[in-house]
Amino acid sequence: MNFSSKLIENAVEAFASLPGIGRKTALRLTLHLVGQDPESTEQFAGAIQNMRRSIRHCSICHNLSDEPVCSVCADKRRDRSLVCVVESIRDVMAIEDTSQFRGLYHVLGGLINPLEGIGPGELAIDSLLERVAEGEIKEIILAISPTIEGDTTMYYITKKLKDSRVSVSSIARGVAFGGELEYADEVTLGRSIVARLPYKLNNE
Amino acid sequence: MNFSSKLIENAVEAFASLPGIGRKTALRLTLHLVGQDPESTEQFAGAIQNMRRSIRHCSICHNLSDEPVCSVCADKRRDRSLVCVVESIRDVMAIEDTSQFRGLYHVLGGLINPLEGIGPGELAIDSLLERVAEGEIKEIILAISPTIEGDTTMYYITKKLKDSRVSVSSIARGVAFGGELEYADEVTLGRSIVARLPYKLNNE
Repeated sequence: MNFSSKLIENAVEAFASLPGIGRKTALRLTLHLVGQDPESTEQFAGAIQNMRRSIRHCSICHNLSDEPVCSVCADKRRDRSLVCVVESIRDVMAIEDTSQFRGLYHVLGGLINPLEGIGPGELAIDSLLERVAEGEIKEIILAISPTIEGDTTMYYITKKLKDSRVSVSSIARGVAFGGELEYADEVTLGRSIVARLPYKLNNE
Repeated sequence: MNFSSKLIENAVEAFASLPGIGRKTALRLTLHLVGQDPESTEQFAGAIQNMRRSIRHCSICHNLSDEPVCSVCADKRRDRSLVCVVESIRDVMAIEDTSQFRGLYHVLGGLINPLEGIGPGELAIDSLLERVAEGEIKEIILAISPTIEGDTTMYYITKKLKDSRVSVSSIARGVAFGGELEYADEVTLGRSIVARLPYKLNNE
């Protein structure tokens, strides 16, 4: 692309450095901002700068937070005996969106992956063990993807927690609600038969 | 979406205010910036702020420019007797990308559209007539879309230029290079037969 302006070129490069945004989209976004009043660009850039300058990780669960302790950990109404262990911040958002979980979280910040040089030391596993050692936690729910890395991480955490008195569970897996049996993958369908549940009538 | 952080929420809203970016993409872009070092966010926001604060329109052709006169108008090697009239800044970029045009431009900033209340007074037509009156321009090329608004605008400009000594041309229209005849629309195909050109051998 041929830019007659270095300023436009720099702004396009900035947008195009974001994942999933190509140079054509970047140009469209840049020209959109040129078409708006300067104040709206200041607000746009300001919101992003403010976020990056002030955002921090919760000192308890490592979730993203505005304060030293995040709004979930600071909420006195939540069940402090139940902790859901997840890989990333996105998983916290996904679970919060369901409104089905009233406990606290623990964000590992990744999964054990020897090929990429990520060992237990790189993840927030020690701080999870410290939280457990404080004695308030009764149950740990592992909400981690069943990949090789996820299985390794779950195995490692479970082994580390063997001598503590917390119970460790994993989220239910099976055919999704609304999912067609014929389109479910073999592993999911096979395991969902092995791990079948007693059928309950609604009025029981 | 359930954000535990107001800062993240504001940044997501900022990204989602851009055209074509939904809240899921906005969240992905925000978390991408959180995962990078703070310096890269400063660079990103800085490039966009700088652009919006300093960008201006060329005082001659109304193209976007870093200086009072844009790099095309300031280029002494370009043919100052030839001016290509276009609707928007994007058209300038598209024509510059072809490297086939060595004249100057004139950006109208829109097309005459009575339904949306855009008359000739809202467009940069008076400044085009002033440029023509200075006497240096010999030919005006109208590179404007053949829509109702485009045709109206071309008619208006041509009528205003009737008494001047400049020649007015319009860009060639017809079946695109590489285009299949059977997929060309009727108007394009019909007009391309009416406006047929003598076939020239390459070595003539």
